[in-house]
Amino acid sequence: MKRHVRWLKPLPLRPRDTVQVVAPASSFDPPGFDVGLAVLRERYNPVHRPDIFASHRYLAGDDTRRGEELARALLDREARAIFCARGGYGAARLLPDLPLADAAPSAFCGFSDLTSVHGALQALGRVTIHAPVLTQLGKQPPEVHEYLFRLLESPEAPPPLTGSDTYVPGMAEGTLVGGNLSVLTRLIGTPYMPPLDGAVLLLEDVTERPYRLDRMWTHLRLAGVFSRVRGIVLGDFTSCEERNADYTSADVLRELARDVGLPCAAGFPIGHGALNYPVALGTQVRLEADAARLTFLEGAVRA
Amino acid sequence: MKRHVRWLKPLPLRPRDTVQVVAPASSFDPPGFDVGLAVLRERYNPVHRPDIFASHRYLAGDDTRRGEELARALLDREARAIFCARGGYGAARLLPDLPLADAAPSAFCGFSDLTSVHGALQALGRVTIHAPVLTQLGKQPPEVHEYLFRLLESPEAPPPLTGSDTYVPGMAEGTLVGGNLSVLTRLIGTPYMPPLDGAVLLLEDVTERPYRLDRMWTHLRLAGVFSRVRGIVLGDFTSCEERNADYTSADVLRELARDVGLPCAAGFPIGHGALNYPVALGTQVRLEADAARLTFLEGAVRA
Repeated sequence: MKRHVRWLKPLPLRPRDTVQVVAPASSFDPPGFDVGLAVLRERYNPVHRPDIFASHRYLAGDDTRRGEELARALLDREARAIFCARGGYGAARLLPDLPLADAAPSAFCGFSDLTSVHGALQALGRVTIHAPVLTQLGKQPPEVHEYLFRLLESPEAPPPLTGSDTYVPGMAEGTLVGGNLSVLTRLIGTPYMPPLDGAVLLLEDVTERPYRLDRMWTHLRLAGVFSRVRGIVLGDFTSCEERNADYTSADVLRELARDVGLPCAAGFPIGHGALNYPVALGTQVRLEADAARLTFLEGAVRA
Repeated sequence: MKRHVRWLKPLPLRPRDTVQVVAPASSFDPPGFDVGLAVLRERYNPVHRPDIFASHRYLAGDDTRRGEELARALLDREARAIFCARGGYGAARLLPDLPLADAAPSAFCGFSDLTSVHGALQALGRVTIHAPVLTQLGKQPPEVHEYLFRLLESPEAPPPLTGSDTYVPGMAEGTLVGGNLSVLTRLIGTPYMPPLDGAVLLLEDVTERPYRLDRMWTHLRLAGVFSRVRGIVLGDFTSCEERNADYTSADVLRELARDVGLPCAAGFPIGHGALNYPVALGTQVRLEADAARLTFLEGAVRA
């Protein structure tokens, strides 16, 4: 049974628009955050609660603080975007209590641990932006910043992105969903998994040993995900190598992809690496695996 | 909707019975394996294929070798038990191709990565034995060996086990299911998840940082598992501490358990620690969390 999803895009941003900055996951160091905030300030008017710097174990404050902060940001109809301070872990803890269905038409931006919020919003038909968190944004080069601002402001399809490897040749068109492999697979069997039928699946990860990548990929396989999606886009798998091994994480992923047999290209500049180009989840894309090219068939925001 | 499961127990073992030894997961070092094999030889007649020592990356040979080995062991009506050489990772890769429904009434023994095979067999109503793998068996003291032999040979309920901590007081009776937290959560949304309605959930893990334990526990919560099971038995969480942290993995698990609110006791001698007492998954147990006592209401094997 296919569910038809009518995708809802966020409103376009304009320079000097107010954007909310939140920390629904792990705590972070202020210096890296400030550099990212400065990048946002060049273009928009970022605001955040003073208690965003809270820390409770590995979390940016307890669930009440983080949940209230994100809930208010989601409901804020004045702000045109929500940016996340850092990933790490913790957003999934908040999902059952977030006002997701009532979220304002602002652009939710983040990646890594925020894959859980992306999934939950995609499950409700929302287009969201897989984009650097603030602690990463300051380390990205100007071309990534400009690509992000363009994506958030223009209803036109952004320029295509190019990967480095073809794992399985072929072409696939569909709705882009996914994000961080570890976090996405933690949504399997929950109400927060994004719609998979006919989708093009984006996956990236960081500091996961090859056998763990295999275990997560195998979870997707056993849950039937690869019989529902049409193609696979692999971003960076940063620091995923086993010490002293005679194989790489790419060897493992290539073999897993070939067993699945869907069009698959790797090495896209998306994830935890030096380049994390933003992409709009919930929009139509075309993957040409032979050329390792991802073409965007529409823009991220409304006209 | 509750599915009534009619549980099928393995036949009892007798001294000198033939038992199959298999390696469906990671490769291993022969010396540790030999010590475990010697323990089995004191009581039974363990047999294995010569290629059990194969190694392909992190796996004990490719899927074909491991799959054939485990399939033949499952179908072998001469052997009265199946023991696993080592956990690690890899058994889940084999699940779709195993003749699980046609498995002989032998006792499947293993833990850790073998939680996936336990889950798949429990999904078919089979009682299996959560027990040391061979590379761990040799390091276990004689009382664990004797407890294991008794469990495999006697239809009587084995002596109760005692934990060290009460996380949530209360009493729960139900079918014992579960095993390794990492591996069990990789069965969510697949056909291999054990029956959860009215179950008592066993969880243990090794070398998982506290935030990862939280992430896996939260996956169980978001998938609705805690609204189906009746109680939680926590075994060893071995080497699960964060370096230089002002909190322990026990702090994190205790808080998560209290949020769930089901009867929960911790510190049972089950898992990757110095004591891994075998327990029969798919049998009726009573958890008295106040006393941190797990009582077995029936034996593991047929009369």
